[in-house]
Amino acid sequence: MALTVVGSIAFDSVRTPFGERDRMLGGSAVHFALAARFFTSVHVVGPVGDDFTGEHLELLRTRGVDVSDIERVPGGQTFFWRGHYDVDMNMAHTDDTRLGVFADFEPKLSESSQAAEVLFLGNIQPDLQRRVRAQANGSRLAALDSMNLWIQTTRDSLVAAIGEVDCLLFNDSEIRMLTEEPNLARAARAVMEMGPRIVVAKRGEYGAVLFTPEGFFALPGFLLEDVRDPTGAGDSFAGGFLGYLDMQGTDKPDAEALRRAMAYGTVLASFNVEEFGTERVARLTEEEISERYEALRGMTHFEGPG
Amino acid sequence: MALTVVGSIAFDSVRTPFGERDRMLGGSAVHFALAARFFTSVHVVGPVGDDFTGEHLELLRTRGVDVSDIERVPGGQTFFWRGHYDVDMNMAHTDDTRLGVFADFEPKLSESSQAAEVLFLGNIQPDLQRRVRAQANGSRLAALDSMNLWIQTTRDSLVAAIGEVDCLLFNDSEIRMLTEEPNLARAARAVMEMGPRIVVAKRGEYGAVLFTPEGFFALPGFLLEDVRDPTGAGDSFAGGFLGYLDMQGTDKPDAEALRRAMAYGTVLASFNVEEFGTERVARLTEEEISERYEALRGMTHFEGPG
Repeated sequence: MALTVVGSIAFDSVRTPFGERDRMLGGSAVHFALAARFFTSVHVVGPVGDDFTGEHLELLRTRGVDVSDIERVPGGQTFFWRGHYDVDMNMAHTDDTRLGVFADFEPKLSESSQAAEVLFLGNIQPDLQRRVRAQANGSRLAALDSMNLWIQTTRDSLVAAIGEVDCLLFNDSEIRMLTEEPNLARAARAVMEMGPRIVVAKRGEYGAVLFTPEGFFALPGFLLEDVRDPTGAGDSFAGGFLGYLDMQGTDKPDAEALRRAMAYGTVLASFNVEEFGTERVARLTEEEISERYEALRGMTHFEGPG
Repeated sequence: MALTVVGSIAFDSVRTPFGERDRMLGGSAVHFALAARFFTSVHVVGPVGDDFTGEHLELLRTRGVDVSDIERVPGGQTFFWRGHYDVDMNMAHTDDTRLGVFADFEPKLSESSQAAEVLFLGNIQPDLQRRVRAQANGSRLAALDSMNLWIQTTRDSLVAAIGEVDCLLFNDSEIRMLTEEPNLARAARAVMEMGPRIVVAKRGEYGAVLFTPEGFFALPGFLLEDVRDPTGAGDSFAGGFLGYLDMQGTDKPDAEALRRAMAYGTVLASFNVEEFGTERVARLTEEEISERYEALRGMTHFEGPG
């Protein structure tokens, strides 16, 4: 079993009501990989610039992530994002985005990245997602994330990319925007008509909903007294979700496995937001994941009519 | 066992993307009573005007609700609310409010209303809530709802009212506004320091969270493909929640009973929003409630690590 992820490898400068960090390691592929590595072998695909040092690679490598498909572009600058959150931390405000080496990125997957059973296309330009998808011949479960920018500017490419994957993981507002359907359950069905048989609607602190042709499943977010930085929570969710599914070793996950995957996604996302950037998930342990999984069961379980 | 509710008895004119209704029966006490009546005897306290006809009383009476403390004020006008919802149906827009007979209402509870074990103070002016609370000597579990208007205009009275109840049911944004604490879990603890030992945060379509000194419990909203009018959903939730607790016949509900109560609240709220005003809950059956309770368990249950 193995999992390949393509997405941004970035430096993030983030300010929240609880502090700020300058040029910390971030990006969708990084947050995803640091979560998924607890369940499976993870290959990261993407470009970085000269400013990406051995120390950053080491952070991933020492945590078991395969970095051999991280391509260093001489003279280039690593993708950069600056943003902030006000009191409502469900809403990110972007102050600056610099594509850097992503502007001319042409993905070339190694044999081991091509052969991975699970593929995650993190939030990048949809044509780029499609070129990676075309190379990943080994993948039996391909999943995709995106954002409002691509829905608004490259909708046709995005719809084509969605047609080539089995699973879509979007924020709920983006599922509504994509389908122009205000009701989430109807919007998820409209997404299934585009191709994916698994649709996950991420709702920030409110949790996530899973839709399949057989029905739906919903979890609240794990309740925390300290939320310092939500950046990367959606990617940590995807890492826990797809990492667990890959560990189950099946391309047609059953309903129970999908529900457990939703719970692991919720757990990984909850750790992500406790500190800035990758700080918390980088030093997370399997034992902490198991404990919170049980705590999540405890906070959502109720009995039949008494 | 019995339950007394004071709150608005109203005519609502509502427009949503799915239709509109003019001067339909509504109000917090009405929505609450129609939900709670499935579990216990309900006494409604509140004033109406000459425009409130026998037909409206009959709708409540034929569903087992005690209407003898509904006071008809000669020459008065029943409380009136006009509002609308756009595509985001979590947000009500108020276009007109006329207090009518509520402006000079002086509550006088009958002996049976005073003796009820459970009391719900629906969303009305907090001094009025306190005068009802003072008369309800029999209540062993008193709960209170309110809104942003009273937090902003009569905060001291509201805090005094909160100090006199066991349970607070608020929208999550109002819990944050009341306590000036953006984190919900911390905000709930701040509410407990004001008096209540049970705090329920209602989150619209995203569900609800229960806080007690022992911990927390969260449920997503029941997913529906057809949501036509959210008006009264919070009161239907409160009716299912407190109605079930009264049926359990205890003033110190245990953790499992509180969780089941949260589930019944979620179920009743989900029926409320399927049609306009009281239309759906007025013709609801116990069998439908049981079915949806099981469906809610089905859509939230997951197993331990496999």
